Amino acid sequence: MVSSSSPDSGPRPPAKRFELLTLGDELLLGLTANSHLTFIGAQLGRRGVILDRNVTITDEAEAIARQFRESWARADVILTTGGLGPTCDDRTREVIAAVLGQQLVFDPEIERAIAERFNQFGRKMTPNNLKQAYRFERGEVLPNANGTAPGLWVEQDGKVLCMLPGPPNELQPMFTEQVLPRLAQLGLVTDREAYVQIRTAGIGESALEAKLQPVFDRYGGALGVAFCAHQGQVDCRLSSPDGRLSLAEIDAIALECARLLGEDFLCFGYDCMAKVCADLLRAQEKTLAVAETATGGLLANAFTDICGASKFFAGGVVSYSHDAKMTLLDCPECLLNQHGAVSAECAVAMATGAAEKLGADYALAVTGFAGPCGGTKENPVGTIYLALHAPHGVWSKKLSYPGPRATVKVRAVNAALDWLRRELVRARRGEAMPARRISAIQ
Amino acid sequence: MVSSSSPDSGPRPPAKRFELLTLGDELLLGLTANSHLTFIGAQLGRRGVILDRNVTITDEAEAIARQFRESWARADVILTTGGLGPTCDDRTREVIAAVLGQQLVFDPEIERAIAERFNQFGRKMTPNNLKQAYRFERGEVLPNANGTAPGLWVEQDGKVLCMLPGPPNELQPMFTEQVLPRLAQLGLVTDREAYVQIRTAGIGESALEAKLQPVFDRYGGALGVAFCAHQGQVDCRLSSPDGRLSLAEIDAIALECARLLGEDFLCFGYDCMAKVCADLLRAQEKTLAVAETATGGLLANAFTDICGASKFFAGGVVSYSHDAKMTLLDCPECLLNQHGAVSAECAVAMATGAAEKLGADYALAVTGFAGPCGGTKENPVGTIYLALHAPHGVWSKKLSYPGPRATVKVRAVNAALDWLRRELVRARRGEAMPARRISAIQ
Repeated sequence: MVSSSSPDSGPRPPAKRFELLTLGDELLLGLTANSHLTFIGAQLGRRGVILDRNVTITDEAEAIARQFRESWARADVILTTGGLGPTCDDRTREVIAAVLGQQLVFDPEIERAIAERFNQFGRKMTPNNLKQAYRFERGEVLPNANGTAPGLWVEQDGKVLCMLPGPPNELQPMFTEQVLPRLAQLGLVTDREAYVQIRTAGIGESALEAKLQPVFDRYGGALGVAFCAHQGQVDCRLSSPDGRLSLAEIDAIALECARLLGEDFLCFGYDCMAKVCADLLRAQEKTLAVAETATGGLLANAFTDICGASKFFAGGVVSYSHDAKMTLLDCPECLLNQHGAVSAECAVAMATGAAEKLGADYALAVTGFAGPCGGTKENPVGTIYLALHAPHGVWSKKLSYPGPRATVKVRAVNAALDWLRRELVRARRGEAMPARRISAIQ
Repeated sequence: MVSSSSPDSGPRPPAKRFELLTLGDELLLGLTANSHLTFIGAQLGRRGVILDRNVTITDEAEAIARQFRESWARADVILTTGGLGPTCDDRTREVIAAVLGQQLVFDPEIERAIAERFNQFGRKMTPNNLKQAYRFERGEVLPNANGTAPGLWVEQDGKVLCMLPGPPNELQPMFTEQVLPRLAQLGLVTDREAYVQIRTAGIGESALEAKLQPVFDRYGGALGVAFCAHQGQVDCRLSSPDGRLSLAEIDAIALECARLLGEDFLCFGYDCMAKVCADLLRAQEKTLAVAETATGGLLANAFTDICGASKFFAGGVVSYSHDAKMTLLDCPECLLNQHGAVSAECAVAMATGAAEKLGADYALAVTGFAGPCGGTKENPVGTIYLALHAPHGVWSKKLSYPGPRATVKVRAVNAALDWLRRELVRARRGEAMPARRISAIQ
């Protein structure tokens, strides 16, 4: 999937081999997820490079030396994470310098930066921190705005070594702000996104591919297409593997695909569904409330994760008991007695109650059996009733998500988000759902 | 950290080298987190083994062949994940068989199992699935209860190869139910947990170490101690690296540590804070309600992730606006006008309101500025006010969490959980917080 933003650059040179070395016992013991692979892999992917290999090893010096020797021999670009701490156990710089045949030199600039950072927090640098002021003699320093250890950069033997500190909040800005531009400068990654990503929701991969195939067929091998399926959504990445199509042409193809997809189209790029809903609500100056049992706060949380949620999110109720539904949402007791809490009728009452109590234009309600306990013959574990209250009516639907508790919650949240999104898209087009269809089960 | 449950087994044989090969482009492109490393690394760690290396590569046949050849030469136990799909691209079995010098044989038992599985879902097996019915001639099959491709197991050249399917919900039960017992049978992992884990909350690693050092000092090198710090909690693992201490002795040491730690002790093992709170509430037959703004549903979700939450969780309110606080929690308007929504007074009113409206014994409230927008000079972004309403009084505290939005939410939730937990522990001991201290800022 390596492509270039320039259509006239001729045949591509052989792809360079990128290897990621992630150091740390905490990774090998499963105490921390390997977020560096996820982040760096995705960032490189967006710039036309797929990692050749990720190797995770201990942060013990001899093991690092052995592995680095092997990686330095086989790869063109080696990125390392971790192992740059101040304790005497951290001998990473030393062993790597030995493999490179380089000296480590003390850099007073780095020392100054570290001392200043400690100062800012009203603390004093320790002697241990001095070792973090060493860099490779024939190499450069990558400043670290969020931590003590700077990154290190070496170009040698036609290869690149880039060493980054372990904490994600330090590594990630350094990678996007310093590493990617340097790699782009050297022509090792594209200088902008190597593909255009179309995000869809509520349509499966096969159906998506079938819808878009007529467009793809017009371009044959000139157009690179890759699908990535996630829970509740499928991403489609368009690129020009051999540079025949310009970025402007790919943008135009993507736009055509988006139009073809109608409501199935979520966005270009990387926004999540809650963000797309938030943008639609804000643009239409509408507000939203939620009422949930089975999802237990996860639906509200999806919206409140969005910055500036208070502009469109009126609030939510986690109505985990009959009392909660009656007291907070004005659900009629007779309704709960007659239909039960896990029913379309209850979902509709919850949505309407949330909209009215919180004075919101739209409301989403979720009730059901997340499991593994509970469930009835008619509504087994995994049964979910959603309701959507909109300015012009309220609807409900019944869904079925067999699976573990956490999965039921996530799938129910995604279904609710997508339903709201589609209604907001239709409202924007002036084509809201048919009016006056109360409590219709879809 | 390899230990044995038998104290008299003499010197340990040299540790075997375990390597994990995780296959899949989706891992290299950061589309999926490498949960296999996190899960398998942790499971092996609990049985006394630290992985030597994890290598993530593409699922392309030649690359797998090259990597497997290298791994098979250097490691004693190789675990692979992924690459066992039905499409013609999946040539993993073939290339690995070639490296092993083995034939692949068709196994009608596997075919029968696959056909039956398709039957259960009312579907028909495709010809492609037939390739999943092949196994190594001199090897065994690990049945897969949740998917099509069985796992494969080979003991050869004094080494072990275990191949598992990629989907986590298939791999994980297979690993715990089949792989670990087999490895234990061969003496490659301990047959039970190799350490006792003490989970603590609300105490830092240095302070924890200082508290327990007097106990540790009595055992010297006979007792293995490892600390793992997470957000809001620190785990301490006790083991007997050379087998001098029996499991019963380690249990006794752990119990002594737990008593020494008092309220800082969370649990033995792996329960999360919300689960510990849930158990305390259920045992004391008390109920809980929550009211949250800044954490926006995340606090309620922590409790509703626990199975059987309806036994102790009365419900929650995500009171994202002044109106929501007034309507759903009976917060007085004058209080909101005078002190604002981000104040101790508001937090207390929210907690009291939630307890009363939902008829709960305990209530937690969180208000604050999760950021990055908002904040005032007096209450900058990251300011959190918590309130805890208990049967005998209500208290509040002010916290400060500079950092990204998601981090503020998580830290606020952990602080609220730990505060409730400590109060419930004291209540269980009959030592609740001093009575009648309303609205005291701590």
